[in-house]
Amino acid sequence: MRTDCKTRLFVDAQLGAKLAVVLNRGQSHYLVSVMRARIGDRVALFNGQDGEWVSEVAEATKRQVTLRVLDQIKKQQPEPDLWLAFAPIKKARLDFIAQKATELGVSHMVPVMTRRTIVDRVKTERMAANAIEAAEQCERMNVPTVGEPIKLDKLLRQWPTERKIMFCDEDLSGIAAHTALAAVGDKPSAAPWAILIGPEGGFDEVERDLIRNHPNCMTVSLGPRILRADTAAMAAISLWQSALGDW
Amino acid sequence: MRTDCKTRLFVDAQLGAKLAVVLNRGQSHYLVSVMRARIGDRVALFNGQDGEWVSEVAEATKRQVTLRVLDQIKKQQPEPDLWLAFAPIKKARLDFIAQKATELGVSHMVPVMTRRTIVDRVKTERMAANAIEAAEQCERMNVPTVGEPIKLDKLLRQWPTERKIMFCDEDLSGIAAHTALAAVGDKPSAAPWAILIGPEGGFDEVERDLIRNHPNCMTVSLGPRILRADTAAMAAISLWQSALGDW
Repeated sequence: MRTDCKTRLFVDAQLGAKLAVVLNRGQSHYLVSVMRARIGDRVALFNGQDGEWVSEVAEATKRQVTLRVLDQIKKQQPEPDLWLAFAPIKKARLDFIAQKATELGVSHMVPVMTRRTIVDRVKTERMAANAIEAAEQCERMNVPTVGEPIKLDKLLRQWPTERKIMFCDEDLSGIAAHTALAAVGDKPSAAPWAILIGPEGGFDEVERDLIRNHPNCMTVSLGPRILRADTAAMAAISLWQSALGDW
Repeated sequence: MRTDCKTRLFVDAQLGAKLAVVLNRGQSHYLVSVMRARIGDRVALFNGQDGEWVSEVAEATKRQVTLRVLDQIKKQQPEPDLWLAFAPIKKARLDFIAQKATELGVSHMVPVMTRRTIVDRVKTERMAANAIEAAEQCERMNVPTVGEPIKLDKLLRQWPTERKIMFCDEDLSGIAAHTALAAVGDKPSAAPWAILIGPEGGFDEVERDLIRNHPNCMTVSLGPRILRADTAAMAAISLWQSALGDW
């Protein structure tokens, strides 16, 4: 934290000087019972649109806290437009992906159901909660959105025309990710991209053909070792951010 | 796994055609009770030196399995010489770092005690066990070593002359890691490097000066968001591997 606020919260409310923000019950409880906030304490707020603001606790009960917004401390920054489309994995590692992808700066996460996907239900609300918490802690100015699970073929059929796909293929035949990204050219900060990561065990042959033949697809390799799906996601985001994002 | 072996094990034994390998009790138990291996089943073996071999189960009790080594299926590959020096963190995330750093290809991990390090004892044996398991799964040909915890100032005093340091500074003032690594030049595959990652809350000012003034130090930034220590480690290894390693 680089403000003097001990707490930084994402709120679904307009932010501007002198506005009042009523926290929901979960956040009120956290602030009063966990952080022991008192009247007059400072809290940093962001909502993904109006920049970051410092506020002070105006009223506080365990059930409801009202904050008074004071000054803007950061202007809203544009974030790279990078989706993470990944075959969902088991609980602990799904939490992990949502947190880490948020820290690393993706704009949207979408679980993709593939033939070898083992997980049936994906707790997207839990992913969204993890994303909010990570965004609060990493000083991001917005929170990535979380899409509902979608089948791979449907996702590719309705794929946005202008969004490129960085497909991390486990068969290692792709060009080195670093080289492929460098060849894309100068950072086109507005260009939308997506990283596509398969399930443990990989996409099957039919799926791989579908992906590789997609006109927006760039197939890349992440080195000679077999990475687990979550590791591959983190590595791919890091390389993309360095080459085309805001690192 | 890309061999027809269901199991791949790291063994502390010489590997060569017709040699017998007696597994330790833990591995014997795993093979017989978990993997249900029977006489004649194939098991892939590596030891970090002799390449990867296929073997078959020659004798098996729940307490001891003897394998007969058959054919070499991969020659030993050199791995990049990259250390990860990091301020240790709590248990689950320490397991995570050991696993992920192994997958991403570091050669050595060393816990560094800093002024803001909260963890007192570091279970290096547990880290080593995590590294072995990850190496078995990711088809690495060796297992990273794990050093005993060492204080930052001592580590820097006895630092090897030729080993460069990629210092991921949280204050974000460094050059973008991507740019700094590209400026190092062509991949000098034999050049030894280390990635240095601070504790949650960062190194203190005295420590930062010590690091930044070290003649081998290259200070880099990993983008505008605040990364947790484990996230920063994964991102830094990915970038190093792409620019100077074997990706």
